[in-house]
This record gives sequence, C-alpha cells and structure tokens, in this order.
Amino acid sequence: MKIAQIAPLAESCPPKLYGGTERIVSYLTEELVDQGHDVTLFASGDSITRADLVACADVGLRLNPHVVDPIPHHVMMLEQVRQRAHEFDVIHFHINILQFPIIHQFAGKTVTTLHGRLDLPELIPFYSTFPNVPVSSISYNQREPLPKNVNWAGNVYHGLPRDLLSFSSQPKGGYLAFLGRISPEKRPDRAIEIAARAGIPLKIAAKVDKYDQAYWDEKIEPMIRAHPNVEYIGEIAEHQKARFIGDALGLLFPIDWPEPFGLVMIESLACGTPVIAFRSGSVPEVIDNGVSGFVVNSVEEAAKAVSKLSGIDRPAVREAFENRFTVERMSRDYLKMYAGLPGVRRSSEIRTMNGAEIGFHLPV
Amino acid sequence: MKIAQIAPLAESCPPKLYGGTERIVSYLTEELVDQGHDVTLFASGDSITRADLVACADVGLRLNPHVVDPIPHHVMMLEQVRQRAHEFDVIHFHINILQFPIIHQFAGKTVTTLHGRLDLPELIPFYSTFPNVPVSSISYNQREPLPKNVNWAGNVYHGLPRDLLSFSSQPKGGYLAFLGRISPEKRPDRAIEIAARAGIPLKIAAKVDKYDQAYWDEKIEPMIRAHPNVEYIGEIAEHQKARFIGDALGLLFPIDWPEPFGLVMIESLACGTPVIAFRSGSVPEVIDNGVSGFVVNSVEEAAKAVSKLSGIDRPAVREAFENRFTVERMSRDYLKMYAGLPGVRRSSEIRTMNGAEIGFHLPV
Repeated sequence: MKIAQIAPLAESCPPKLYGGTERIVSYLTEELVDQGHDVTLFASGDSITRADLVACADVGLRLNPHVVDPIPHHVMMLEQVRQRAHEFDVIHFHINILQFPIIHQFAGKTVTTLHGRLDLPELIPFYSTFPNVPVSSISYNQREPLPKNVNWAGNVYHGLPRDLLSFSSQPKGGYLAFLGRISPEKRPDRAIEIAARAGIPLKIAAKVDKYDQAYWDEKIEPMIRAHPNVEYIGEIAEHQKARFIGDALGLLFPIDWPEPFGLVMIESLACGTPVIAFRSGSVPEVIDNGVSGFVVNSVEEAAKAVSKLSGIDRPAVREAFENRFTVERMSRDYLKMYAGLPGVRRSSEIRTMNGAEIGFHLPV
Repeated sequence: MKIAQIAPLAESCPPKLYGGTERIVSYLTEELVDQGHDVTLFASGDSITRADLVACADVGLRLNPHVVDPIPHHVMMLEQVRQRAHEFDVIHFHINILQFPIIHQFAGKTVTTLHGRLDLPELIPFYSTFPNVPVSSISYNQREPLPKNVNWAGNVYHGLPRDLLSFSSQPKGGYLAFLGRISPEKRPDRAIEIAARAGIPLKIAAKVDKYDQAYWDEKIEPMIRAHPNVEYIGEIAEHQKARFIGDALGLLFPIDWPEPFGLVMIESLACGTPVIAFRSGSVPEVIDNGVSGFVVNSVEEAAKAVSKLSGIDRPAVREAFENRFTVERMSRDYLKMYAGLPGVRRSSEIRTMNGAEIGFHLPV
C-alpha cells in the first residue's frame, strides 16, 4: 500500500525529548516499512526514518527557539499533503484538528487518530461537524465525552516494538516505581501515600514542566522530604527505562484524569512489571485485573494491592504485552482499518483495475 | 454584491473589550450594509450587526472561561464558509492562517486582510506557499519582512466611522496623552521621558495585561511615582476616548516595534489632536509630518516636537482624518479591491450572465 503518515511537528519522529504521539507515529511508520509498504512520512526534518521523509520544518518546533506559533508550519504541511493526496492509497493523520475542512475531497481514504483527551468543551461538537471524516480512538473510554454520531473508523491501542524494553524476570530493586510527569493529574502525591502505607520504598523518575513548578515546589517536594522511603531521581532517558521499570516490584499509575491511553503502562508490561493503576480513562482496557496488575479505586486499595504483587506471574505480564501491545499488533489493526475505509480501493477492485474498468473503481 | 466577512472569534463584532481586528470588521461590515450590499458576517454569536450573522461561537471565545483552545471553533467556522462559498460573490477573511489550504477551490474570489505583524520567522515562507490566495496589507511597511512573490491584492489603511470621535478645536487639558497598552513595545517609559523633558504633564490611559504585569511593577509604576507630572488613569472605555484624546495637546506614540497600523493614531487625528510618533512600522504612512503631527527618531526630537505642537492647525489634523482614514474611504478601497480579484465576476460579465452564457462566465 502507498501510505502517508502525517505527524505533529512539535517533536521529530522519533522524538528527541518527550512526545508520545511522535513515538507512536515513528513505531508505526517503521513497522509498515518493514512489512514492505511504501510509506511517506510528513514530519520535522530532523526525523529519522526509512520511509520517504517530507521535511515540513527544519527541526521539531519545540526545539526551535525562534518559532512563536506552531500553526503556520502545520498549515503549510497540510497544503503539501493536499497537493499530493492523489499519490497515496491512504493518508493517516496524527494531528487532531486542522486537516478536517481541507481533506473533504479525499476524506474517504483518510483516517485521523485522536491522540489527546476529548473532554474539552470545544471538541464536543467538533468531530460530528465533519461526518465524512473517519477518526479513530486509542481507547474506548476516550470516546465517552463525544456524541454518538462521530464517524469512528475503529479503535487501535498503541503498541511498542517488541524488543524496545526487555523482560525482567527477577526485579532486583525492591521498590515501587513512578514514571512520567510531576503534575496534578498524574497524582505523584497518591504514589507517595501508597508507598508509605505499604511500607515499600518508592522511586520517582519524572520531569517537572515549567507550568508544574509550583505544584512541585508547594506540594510534592515537601512530601518527598517528609518521606525518607521516597527517592526522586529526576528525568530518565529512554535507554534507562527498562532497568528502572524492570527492577521495580510494581509500577504505580494513580492517575486522576481521563488518560486516553497511558504509554507507560504498556512499557511496564513489556518489562514484566505489574501495574497498580487507578480506575480512570483507558486503565481498565489496558490492565487485566489480577493478571497484569491491579485496577484500584482508592489509596487503601492500592496499598493492599502492593502486598499482592508477589502473587503476579511476571512472564504472564510480559505475555499480556506481547499479545496486545506490540507494534505488530498495532500496525495489523491499522492496516485492517485502512482496508475498511470507504475511499480505499479493495484489493479485488485493484485487481479489476489492473484489468479493465479503471474509471469506475477509482476512489472518491 | 453578496459579500461574506469572516471575523476572528476571540471577541464579538464590535468587541466588548480590546479587539482591534473585530472593530475594523464591524465598521466595514456596517458600512457595506449601509451602501446596500448583501453582507453575511461570520462571527461570534454575541456580535451586533445589521448584516446576516452566522454565529460561530456563543460568545467571543476570550469571554468564555470554558474554552481552552480557540482553534476548533475557527475550523468549524471555516467548514461553514467552505460549504456556503458558492453563495457569495466575494469572501473577505480577517483571520490570518487557517483558511489558506481550505479555500483553494474558490481562492480567486477571496481576500485575506493580514491584521498582525508579519516579521515572525514562521510567517516569512507562509504566504508565498499559497500563490493563488490573494492577501491585503494594512500598511506598506507591514509587507517588508515578506518575500516579493506574495500575492498582494492591495493595501487598505484602516478607517473609523466619521462621527465616532468628535473634533475638538480647543483642547482644554494642557496635557500630553498616552493611550493603549502598558507593554515594552509601546514604550510608555519613553512617553514619560518626553513629557519630563518638555515640562508638560502626561496622562496615561492604558490597560496592563497579565503578561505585562512584571513590566508595569518593575519599570513603569516606579517611573510614574518618580514623576509627579505623570498621571496614570487606568483603562478607559470607548465613550471616554474622545474627551481624553480631544483635550490633549498631543498624543504620544513612541513605539519600538513594527506597528502594522496603529488605530490610536487615527483616533487622535479624528479628534484633531496631533500625534508625535516614533519612525517605526506604519507611522510615516499614517502621519503627515508637520501637518497631522511629527515623526521623530529620538526622545530629544520628540521633546522638541512638543514645543511645536502649538503650530499645528487642528482643523487640518481633522481634515487628514476625513480625507484618508474614514470607514467610507476604507470600504471604497475594499470594494475596488474586490472588483479586481481574479475570481470575482465583472459587472459586464454579470450582465452577460443575466442574458445567456451563464456557464461560461462562472467564477473559478
């Protein structure tokens, strides 16, 4: 298939810093190339890919201090996509908004994966304004705030390369892990309470964004100082993740917001490390309760779950990852979705086209 | 003519608070209605107009505390414009960016007025990416940062309703006026220095935006306290402007940025109050040096110009306004521009169409 992947320009693919969407676009793109598809990646020019790269900005916009407004670069990228749309069998957008009124002439061979939260009031009417534009979710829970008449092409859970994070059968650390951002919706404060109640050390590997600095200064840093069992080790790099998670008894994911997916959960499963997660957003869809971790409703339940971690079979946790959250599975799901899009030629039609009635079978 | 005006949604038309673009869209729209044109205004639902209003948000987005991101509402508005494009002879955009790749099928009967500064690095390549989309400037200086191959349909200076601000032949205040925002690029510090050197009182009527609070606290407020001749009177309402400006000996406009137009200058001219302005951005195009004010290059020159204010003929200042900066002149310029757009039907063609060969003369 001739496939275009349209990435956000904030970060390169893969990202040099934080950038969950760009990571997924990168994993999917490389996997589709591996499978022999002809893939074109619209992304920032410092992206690294075996697909054909269309550089739509010199570097990820977040890394360019001169860029005030990211919108013009995205609009220029979309103009390139529009002009070249006829070249592709399917066009897969990973940017949320701007393309909708642009693609009306070829919407049937596009799909837009919605990577963010959808419970913002301005988004509620948005997607049903474009009934001909197929969209796809990254969890069923993510869809909840939207009305019923959104044009869902499917739901595809994220996936990671099978060998990105290696399996740890024997965690050596004897600690609980918290990995991500220090922010109110991630609730590191709950993680600290859970560890304190369970009497197990906690290691926090997390970055503090500028707009979360006050939350860190006023709430989290004093809590860490008050709990000698809690260690803050700062932000860690991708290559340090396998050891940090793999050596943990369990990963705490005590979120307090409708997380649309939560990549760190499947990173943990890849390491064989069970996850104790609060029931919110995608959590019950990602964690098999009692198998790959525990889905809990309170700090008390979470602390009790810690004592049950030793009963979890780590190979089964890894198996849950391999069965459900690899990039092979993700790309298989997307290819099935592409094939079902109304404007994508079926292989039977393509066969026919190689014969005679070409005009009749051309996509919309 | 059947004309669509597309306003930003941040504020209503006219704006309840600050909103230079929405004010201009409102003035132009009402004037075109007065002249008998069939005008449709795409704007926020709390706009007040005699045109057909297409409400694209309940209220100006800046006034809606629930709105996190203004983009989805603008994209939904553009989808409505796109679907109804065939209804209009001309479509006039006052939003800067998002419409460009959407309007390619009818770009020839659109024009986009660029209301903001164009010296941002991400805008330099933007407009020449869309060679078929006509754009219009609000001063020739505004065009300077852009490459030569931008598709300029024309330049139209802003205009105000003739009776919005009444002429003041005898200023009663004996002070210099500074009106606008307290911000580093507006240089209220220069205004204070000029007044101090000239030995004339200064009144500052200006708002302090949240992101300018530090500049106010650390720089301007201490300067005002140190200069007993300077009075800060806070933000004033539209209806207070005529008196505030009209009673001043002169208006100080000591800017330090490429101001694309500078509405307050023509507000001052309407009152008959001469303007002392720094040579930057549109200033030399708006102020007739020695007639409607003085264009200066330094605080020293500005202070000297203050002593020459009494030599300025205030009726001639008002005349400069009436000749060059009324809404009638602005709408005349825009109508001429509309008529010259490549996709707008000439009246001769319309006559033909009323006869026979309709299909042939339809616009692109």
